[in-house]
Amino acid sequence: MWRKFLPREFNFNELFEKQIGYAVEAASCLRKIAESGTVDENTFNKVKTLEHQCDEVTHEIMGQLNKTFITPFDREDIHALAKELDDIVDTINTLVNRLKVFKITGVDKTLVEFASVIEDSVHAVVQAIKGLRDMRHVQSVREACVEINRLENVGDAMRDRVHGELFDNEKDPITIIKWKEIYQEAETILDICEDVAHIVETILMKQA
Amino acid sequence: MWRKFLPREFNFNELFEKQIGYAVEAASCLRKIAESGTVDENTFNKVKTLEHQCDEVTHEIMGQLNKTFITPFDREDIHALAKELDDIVDTINTLVNRLKVFKITGVDKTLVEFASVIEDSVHAVVQAIKGLRDMRHVQSVREACVEINRLENVGDAMRDRVHGELFDNEKDPITIIKWKEIYQEAETILDICEDVAHIVETILMKQA
Amino acid sequence: MWRKFLPREFNFNELFEKQIGYAVEAASCLRKIAESGTVDENTFNKVKTLEHQCDEVTHEIMGQLNKTFITPFDREDIHALAKELDDIVDTINTLVNRLKVFKITGVDKTLVEFASVIEDSVHAVVQAIKGLRDMRHVQSVREACVEINRLENVGDAMRDRVHGELFDNEKDPITIIKWKEIYQEAETILDICEDVAHIVETILMKQA
Repeated sequence: MWRKFLPREFNFNELFEKQIGYAVEAASCLRKIAESGTVDENTFNKVKTLEHQCDEVTHEIMGQLNKTFITPFDREDIHALAKELDDIVDTINTLVNRLKVFKITGVDKTLVEFASVIEDSVHAVVQAIKGLRDMRHVQSVREACVEINRLENVGDAMRDRVHGELFDNEKDPITIIKWKEIYQEAETILDICEDVAHIVETILMKQA
Repeated sequence: MWRKFLPREFNFNELFEKQIGYAVEAASCLRKIAESGTVDENTFNKVKTLEHQCDEVTHEIMGQLNKTFITPFDREDIHALAKELDDIVDTINTLVNRLKVFKITGVDKTLVEFASVIEDSVHAVVQAIKGLRDMRHVQSVREACVEINRLENVGDAMRDRVHGELFDNEKDPITIIKWKEIYQEAETILDICEDVAHIVETILMKQA
Repeated sequence: MWRKFLPREFNFNELFEKQIGYAVEAASCLRKIAESGTVDENTFNKVKTLEHQCDEVTHEIMGQLNKTFITPFDREDIHALAKELDDIVDTINTLVNRLKVFKITGVDKTLVEFASVIEDSVHAVVQAIKGLRDMRHVQSVREACVEINRLENVGDAMRDRVHGELFDNEKDPITIIKWKEIYQEAETILDICEDVAHIVETILMKQA
């Protein structure tokens, strides 16, 4: 398909940074919810709004991608990156939603830990994404990717430990159903951050 | 890889319309099952057959895609569209399967609602797909995509409401396990319709 | 993005064979665990190690793909194949992990059956992958793909039957939660083998 006479250039970095900016705010809301032990209406709505805002930026990236002839990275990497960054906010929103639907109240130590690891991972993603603006920052981008991978392993071990404890100690099946899904969803957010790191590493490799 | 001297043209619209035709029939079977409150053998087998037939058309599209040099839309969009249309029928089949495996009997008001929303969404997908034949129908395609997105939001809210009710009122964990999955699967069908709408919007954007 | 003056050729078959080699070992560990009815520490760690080793080969393939100008198959098919082969080992590792977290002990007849079907499917994938080295083996590759599809149908029916029995006979919801997930995960491994078969069939089609 011809992208009709539009050899335009476009800088996608700003839009990626907008997306991850929403993820930072969403992760901060999640930590607040976990630490307060309650899904207050304000924070719930804030996360929902962030999810919509991030959706719009993702849509804008896809639109630009179709209109732009010269892209800073391979087209498929821009597409994948926009999608995964959007997925971070989506999945934080899903988790917050589950906490509300399940009427979870009270501070859960492991959820607080998870929220903190998620926030760290999202901050490392910020570092990786910002570093893509200038290939002189390649070392910093690499370090961020290593950190994101490390945090995913931390989350994996946390989920397995806490799932084990749940099945060892909890007698109420409905409580098991709820918390099994909550921890699983929390871990999924770290998986998506790791997917972002993989795409970023691919972009670095191609630039090398 | 050279697609050896085969600058053949092929019209994919007919095959997409075949796929969504099977989805229409499958969605109608699902509604029948929901409204009758029983998974009768005939309807169960019909859905299974539709799933196989749709599989074959999908396979045919992928085959044509590899043999065709000039495609009406970007190759990756054809691939993605065929896959998602196939997924609609697959997931309706999975849902019907779950209803049978869980031995669900009796009319459930929310499932009837879900089946009706799914049928509406599939009909909107028909409108979107048929409109792709002629770019003069672009307005109708756009309207169909907006409607598909709206119905996905309706389904999202339905699932959250009904999951909330389930965890509030149902005391039997096994019943919770079953219906939680059924409503989740129903919502997934609407998600896939929305994925189709996104691909169609991408195709429109590139034609613009 | 220019792949700077690097019209290098690279043979990916060896790396695909390494990946599927790890899957063979992992599937054999799974069968051992199922037949002994216990997740012994040694076998558990072995599977974990295989998962890491396969990860590294996958990473190597992706790296080579970005550095190689002339590839034996379409770039997207190499990428997809590497990813799915990696997913086989990943999902076997997830299943073994679940068996450990759920503290499953005792021989379960259906799990032994599943492990055996998984092993058969992985061996058929070996045949399909090895056949890709030489297009004179196309008949053998095709047969392997048919066999992989057949085994996926076998697994599907097994999961539905055993899920049905679970919900019919098991009274303890926590036991249902565990085994429902275990059989689902087992079936997913066969789904991934089928995805590999589809990619291989696509490669054959393009060569035809």
